Amino acid sequence: MNPRDRFLAACRGEPVDRPPVWLMRQAGRYLPEYRAVRAGVSFLEMCADVERAVTVSLQPIDLVGSAAVILFQDIFTPIPGMGVELDFAPGPVIARPIREDAQVAALAVPDPRRSVPYVFEILGRLREALAPRQIPLLGFAGAPFTLAAYLIQGSGSKDFSTLKRFLQTRPELVDALLAKLTDLTIDYLKAQIEAGAEAVQLFDTWAGLLDREAYRRFAEPAHHRIAEALASGPAPLILYVNNGAHIVDLAADSGAAVLSLDWRVDLRRAAEEYGGRVSLQGNLDPCWLHAPRERIFAMVRAMAEAAKPARGFILNLGHGCLPDTPVEGVRAFTDAARALGA
Amino acid sequence: MNPRDRFLAACRGEPVDRPPVWLMRQAGRYLPEYRAVRAGVSFLEMCADVERAVTVSLQPIDLVGSAAVILFQDIFTPIPGMGVELDFAPGPVIARPIREDAQVAALAVPDPRRSVPYVFEILGRLREALAPRQIPLLGFAGAPFTLAAYLIQGSGSKDFSTLKRFLQTRPELVDALLAKLTDLTIDYLKAQIEAGAEAVQLFDTWAGLLDREAYRRFAEPAHHRIAEALASGPAPLILYVNNGAHIVDLAADSGAAVLSLDWRVDLRRAAEEYGGRVSLQGNLDPCWLHAPRERIFAMVRAMAEAAKPARGFILNLGHGCLPDTPVEGVRAFTDAARALGA
Repeated sequence: MNPRDRFLAACRGEPVDRPPVWLMRQAGRYLPEYRAVRAGVSFLEMCADVERAVTVSLQPIDLVGSAAVILFQDIFTPIPGMGVELDFAPGPVIARPIREDAQVAALAVPDPRRSVPYVFEILGRLREALAPRQIPLLGFAGAPFTLAAYLIQGSGSKDFSTLKRFLQTRPELVDALLAKLTDLTIDYLKAQIEAGAEAVQLFDTWAGLLDREAYRRFAEPAHHRIAEALASGPAPLILYVNNGAHIVDLAADSGAAVLSLDWRVDLRRAAEEYGGRVSLQGNLDPCWLHAPRERIFAMVRAMAEAAKPARGFILNLGHGCLPDTPVEGVRAFTDAARALGA
Repeated sequence: MNPRDRFLAACRGEPVDRPPVWLMRQAGRYLPEYRAVRAGVSFLEMCADVERAVTVSLQPIDLVGSAAVILFQDIFTPIPGMGVELDFAPGPVIARPIREDAQVAALAVPDPRRSVPYVFEILGRLREALAPRQIPLLGFAGAPFTLAAYLIQGSGSKDFSTLKRFLQTRPELVDALLAKLTDLTIDYLKAQIEAGAEAVQLFDTWAGLLDREAYRRFAEPAHHRIAEALASGPAPLILYVNNGAHIVDLAADSGAAVLSLDWRVDLRRAAEEYGGRVSLQGNLDPCWLHAPRERIFAMVRAMAEAAKPARGFILNLGHGCLPDTPVEGVRAFTDAARALGA
């Protein structure tokens, strides 16, 4: 099978010769070649620079043997177009965090094709580059809850205490914000699919901070709306909820074709309980890529074995590559995935 | 029932009139009266200052209506006595993180009665103050894995990537370190019990960063050793694993009398599955104390109802009070607990 057919079959739960493999944040600072392209430009400049974004998106294929490419971009890419002023320092910092209903009312929901045209140019260029090699191209977006978390909190945070205060005291403001972000996210993902993305991943980085009741109230509805909106389209949806071991049953019923698991989730149990209705992706702790090569091979074999009850399985990490992730560990990971077919 | 009998009965799974209540980090910066006592002294000075430590330990009884007192101290209190140089800036920073076997071999396991005598003086003073009011006194310690995490990483960290590298590449060094820390922790908790602690809580702040396999390998064995060592003594052991929703089944079988749950855990499910063999404590998200008073009352009633299948239940948070926790929210929480008996 070629990498593209293998990937899409795994998403849809159709037979494959071996699990496809890629890594979250595979285009990142751990790669010297990425740092070279990044040198001298800010993160936001890098995202808007078609040439550079295409280059780093493609790097993981040959440098570490990844079998899928994901658009290089940030989850905040479509947010300035709403009228939100933000900077990266290095995480997102919102100039005027959302505090009042009027701020939510004032947010635009622009057509991403016009507000961030470079994203679709990058996707077109990537699709062209990947077509001859039959490598699948993934788009992605931040989940509405995660975007709302930053917009209200104002930046990343250990506890997101301000956000959580709003969930308890101003739920109607949060709902209104989530509604706009969900509309935006649907448009943005649809436009990515039109531009060549063959699958799309929704990253809910902060929904795992919520207890189950709050997750059902504030995070889950957007997953369902987005899954429904994309269901009739050609590209499978992959849902990743960071630190979401406690809501994996809920995430499995989001309507997404693939559930991408945090490393805390027991892969075998998830495959047995939910793998009949959703394909799984994951879920090695990225820090385990520091292990010796033969240990990485053993862990990959164990994951493939554990995932067998699932209708489909995509080998990946349980979180993104870290700046100190060793390149040789990533290479061992993809080599081990390929060895599963031997 | 008096607060002491109620608390100890809940730990042991004996009948109570209503769940006892206290809050992790109830003596903390959210209290203006705590900040007043803390003014002008460093955190380490505060820990070693018997007068101040006694004062802030007792504050939550009258200021917010807590029905138990926990020793004011840090999980790092017994560590300098091992020969480790550390500072708080504001989190713990280790001058020379553990990198070599020789550093582990050089660590002392001192008798805490001699290395930190003030801890036992504080406990004695607290026991005296609490006896007439029949309020229970809790001691505590950091779990060996969490202490080892800091000693190897060198400080707090989002990913604990250095620590995790050592778990994969130097497991024998980690084991040797954990063995010494477990010996120390057992001595330290036994000495606290001798000095008047009527129950002790073990805080495993970082074990929740581990996948299940690594948790079983590096965090769980110390829980079992500590629970066994204290089993014949008079004081019940409470085990808290922060962000441990994915290992709650393993923690339930640690041998501890009480399992203190992170807010991510579904309390009803935990009560049904594990509550027959272990009492439960928890587990409100501390940020929910920003909610209106009537909503806090409703959440406390729902928790008490959900915990009913458990042999015993102690109302608490799923994590410690935060600096911005509202005093009136804490008061509402303890008032709601008392109202359960009405």
